[in-house]
Amino acid sequence: MSTHPDHYIKLADHAKKASHLKSVAALLGWDQETYMPGGGADARAEQVALMAGIQHEMLTDPKLGDLIGACTADTSLSQGDTQEAANIREMRRDYDKRTKIPAELVSALAEATSRAQHAWKDAREQSDFAAFKPWLDKVLDLTREKAKCLSDGHGELYDALIDEYEPNAKASEIEAIFTPLKKEISDLVLNIAENGKAPSKAVLNRPITPAKQEAFGRFVAKSCGFDFSRGRLDITTHPFCEGVGPGDTRMTTRYRESSWTDSLYGIMHEMGHGLYEQGLPLGQSHGQSGPHQIGMPCGEAVSLGIHESQSRLWENAVGCSLPFWKWALPHAKEFFGEVMGDQTPETMAAAVTTAEPSLIRVEADEGTYNLHIMIRFELERAILSGDLSTADLPAAWNDAYKTYMGLDVPSDKEGVLQDVHWSFGLIGYFPTYTLGNLYAAQFWAQVRSENADLDNQIAAGNFEPLLAWFRTNVHQHGRRYTPAQLCERATGKPLSNEPLVSYLKDKLYPVYGL
Amino acid sequence: MSTHPDHYIKLADHAKKASHLKSVAALLGWDQETYMPGGGADARAEQVALMAGIQHEMLTDPKLGDLIGACTADTSLSQGDTQEAANIREMRRDYDKRTKIPAELVSALAEATSRAQHAWKDAREQSDFAAFKPWLDKVLDLTREKAKCLSDGHGELYDALIDEYEPNAKASEIEAIFTPLKKEISDLVLNIAENGKAPSKAVLNRPITPAKQEAFGRFVAKSCGFDFSRGRLDITTHPFCEGVGPGDTRMTTRYRESSWTDSLYGIMHEMGHGLYEQGLPLGQSHGQSGPHQIGMPCGEAVSLGIHESQSRLWENAVGCSLPFWKWALPHAKEFFGEVMGDQTPETMAAAVTTAEPSLIRVEADEGTYNLHIMIRFELERAILSGDLSTADLPAAWNDAYKTYMGLDVPSDKEGVLQDVHWSFGLIGYFPTYTLGNLYAAQFWAQVRSENADLDNQIAAGNFEPLLAWFRTNVHQHGRRYTPAQLCERATGKPLSNEPLVSYLKDKLYPVYGL
Repeated sequence: MSTHPDHYIKLADHAKKASHLKSVAALLGWDQETYMPGGGADARAEQVALMAGIQHEMLTDPKLGDLIGACTADTSLSQGDTQEAANIREMRRDYDKRTKIPAELVSALAEATSRAQHAWKDAREQSDFAAFKPWLDKVLDLTREKAKCLSDGHGELYDALIDEYEPNAKASEIEAIFTPLKKEISDLVLNIAENGKAPSKAVLNRPITPAKQEAFGRFVAKSCGFDFSRGRLDITTHPFCEGVGPGDTRMTTRYRESSWTDSLYGIMHEMGHGLYEQGLPLGQSHGQSGPHQIGMPCGEAVSLGIHESQSRLWENAVGCSLPFWKWALPHAKEFFGEVMGDQTPETMAAAVTTAEPSLIRVEADEGTYNLHIMIRFELERAILSGDLSTADLPAAWNDAYKTYMGLDVPSDKEGVLQDVHWSFGLIGYFPTYTLGNLYAAQFWAQVRSENADLDNQIAAGNFEPLLAWFRTNVHQHGRRYTPAQLCERATGKPLSNEPLVSYLKDKLYPVYGL
Repeated sequence: MSTHPDHYIKLADHAKKASHLKSVAALLGWDQETYMPGGGADARAEQVALMAGIQHEMLTDPKLGDLIGACTADTSLSQGDTQEAANIREMRRDYDKRTKIPAELVSALAEATSRAQHAWKDAREQSDFAAFKPWLDKVLDLTREKAKCLSDGHGELYDALIDEYEPNAKASEIEAIFTPLKKEISDLVLNIAENGKAPSKAVLNRPITPAKQEAFGRFVAKSCGFDFSRGRLDITTHPFCEGVGPGDTRMTTRYRESSWTDSLYGIMHEMGHGLYEQGLPLGQSHGQSGPHQIGMPCGEAVSLGIHESQSRLWENAVGCSLPFWKWALPHAKEFFGEVMGDQTPETMAAAVTTAEPSLIRVEADEGTYNLHIMIRFELERAILSGDLSTADLPAAWNDAYKTYMGLDVPSDKEGVLQDVHWSFGLIGYFPTYTLGNLYAAQFWAQVRSENADLDNQIAAGNFEPLLAWFRTNVHQHGRRYTPAQLCERATGKPLSNEPLVSYLKDKLYPVYGL
């Protein structure tokens, strides 16, 4: 960076330090979930809080504001389609947002959500929505206040909240995509439920030891391109993938002897996140040229939706396909032995392709998952705006599950109380899951249109061309473009629901004999 | 701590935060040695440096100085034999030392030792002392300067350096103990080498898989009292034990299939350190009353020598004894099977008891280890004072090995260049190893004199009374007393070499048929 002016070099240096603090916090979190002995829990909570304070101080430091100001004023840097301009634009955006929320509101939200989580846990156990309602109301009040600070009174409050997870997304635009999508998927799912013939899934429950599952999962991840010299795979109760820092991407999974594809697809999901992290331009790999982007927006993932598009693509579009099983099945037979003997790529691909209405989001299959999400999007938008009172929320939830999936919700425990998100104040987060599936389908259609040989490559275990497409079109850009711009640049079109609908129909109908 | 005055509460709060930062740094170090993927190394070095800077800032903050001043001036707190008075005394001491060394000297030392370590590595490989000498001279110059700052011109420079590792120890007092000890141990070792009959050690090289070694090591550590709900055992190249934080003590070891007692005694050594860490009064256990001491001197280990006394006691006095093998052998037979079939407690205890002159310190046995240390103590004290020029150091080294162990040193690689310590500027660190053995022997003699049933307890796998003695006499005090005071309180006598000499004679002569 020696050719840059002093204010930009200082800005990059500040960003790098802030990134290192973030890495330290990430390691504390990873360790807590993987290896920390139980006795360390109390001190760990205090360590995490202390580091969060130090991080916050660094990220709201007026000196940082001055540096961003100096760089913004320097039009030779801040104008044009360059990494530098994108970095300055995005750091301005982050800094302004961070400094807009008063410290008292941050504390009030931290306290209320901490209490609300406890209340939610108890309420869910008792299936007692009334016990959770006052806490939900409290969190909603504070979340509205936060949205007001962020939006400066402009636009729909919900937009200010989505923006945290999916920059520049708007609720009205999401609604325009989701409304027809919901109808299409609901019709598909209800049609399958009524007329489809489900394939046998017995192979998925044949016992495979965790050690064998892990060895196979590692083999698949390595074959797809996950670099274990710059990453890890460990065990946790709640799987995740964390970019701990440059050259250090850690994914986790869990193993159940009686459902080996859970861990396989869990690993492929986290691996999709991990490949994105490993592909960010941190100067560590891929022969990338140009300055390191450690801690700079161009070195960071652009949104949760784009992140989820990577995980869902590898998990579903790749991992549940026939070409994948043409390659993977002989290896599965090596790793698992006789238990797989009667399988063909066709039986495996059919067994892992599912669309069956169910009550619990985290257990939902690819066919129905988006219905769970779109229901939540509608409901949380309505309770935030006040169009729906929280008192009426459980009934609205149950109506939606009846309408879109044909299900009766027997209790709030299996209904409106199932997710922790709202107690955390996470409003605007849910839609990023379906945005991820939409982006994945649109990217998938594009990469297939550009590469007619893709199925053969996958069937031969050659995942490199697929990964290279994502490196070029998504990973290397970091936050240089908005998610919407990234999508248009990569696919030539704005995001639409057509690719996802086609993808699901093409995949699900044949498997169910329709 | 609600009954304490405001300045003491603030002091304790500051100490706790500093302790959390230390924990974070410790976790970064632990992770680097255990699970971090290689790709994370560059960023990790920067993360460590960043955290060290934040820690240093907190520990030299003038506000901390003011709080210590206010507490010192408050004689109701700072006088008498109380935890509070000890905390204030030791925090004053730490703060004064930390603020005595100018920042430029700290940087100069950091840079010189970093370069000296590289030079040492190359020089050792080439067995080329001349290539290391200029770097050793440079490090010695800066280390003398540091010692001058710390000592304010009083006393022997070496004392100011030992003080970092063994508070209040003096070179002249150590010399008074070491000089006769060296003669005694040298005579013992040379006598054994000339006249002794070595017992068979073949059992130590029978192949045992790492998984079995680990399972047995964990069983032994748990039986001795190591609490795995507040600690861990992992694998590293260079084993260590780290008190990551309250309730979180992590030890590591390594496994070689062909020498299973290496890992057993490695684990028992680190476990000794770990039991000390787990016994410090951090309010997490042992029904300790009184305020938490997290980050306060009374919650910290008092010295490296006392720390080492704990590791050496469990490794050698306990682990290599006949009563231990009366208990452990039947379990070893369960864990390892037939391969141990021909062993008796007597053959095992004899096989692990050794006094054989050798060139390399880190591979030395219990009988000869202290000779390696005492030679280094003499030499480093002489090169620091200038009584010995570094040019004459290799010859002096070789002379000492000839005199005390009867060995010819074939090359500097196996001689004066073998240890990394001096390139780090670690002068005054070596003697703590033998101080540890001296404390261990004196504690061991005392605990035996107080508990005539100890051997039977150990032979029955009841380690609780032994651990309880250390909890009461050593662990619970933290830094409340100096190492010398702690020794006198626990054993009724100042530290002397008699217990160690008797212990070694009683143990070694019978095994070697003398």
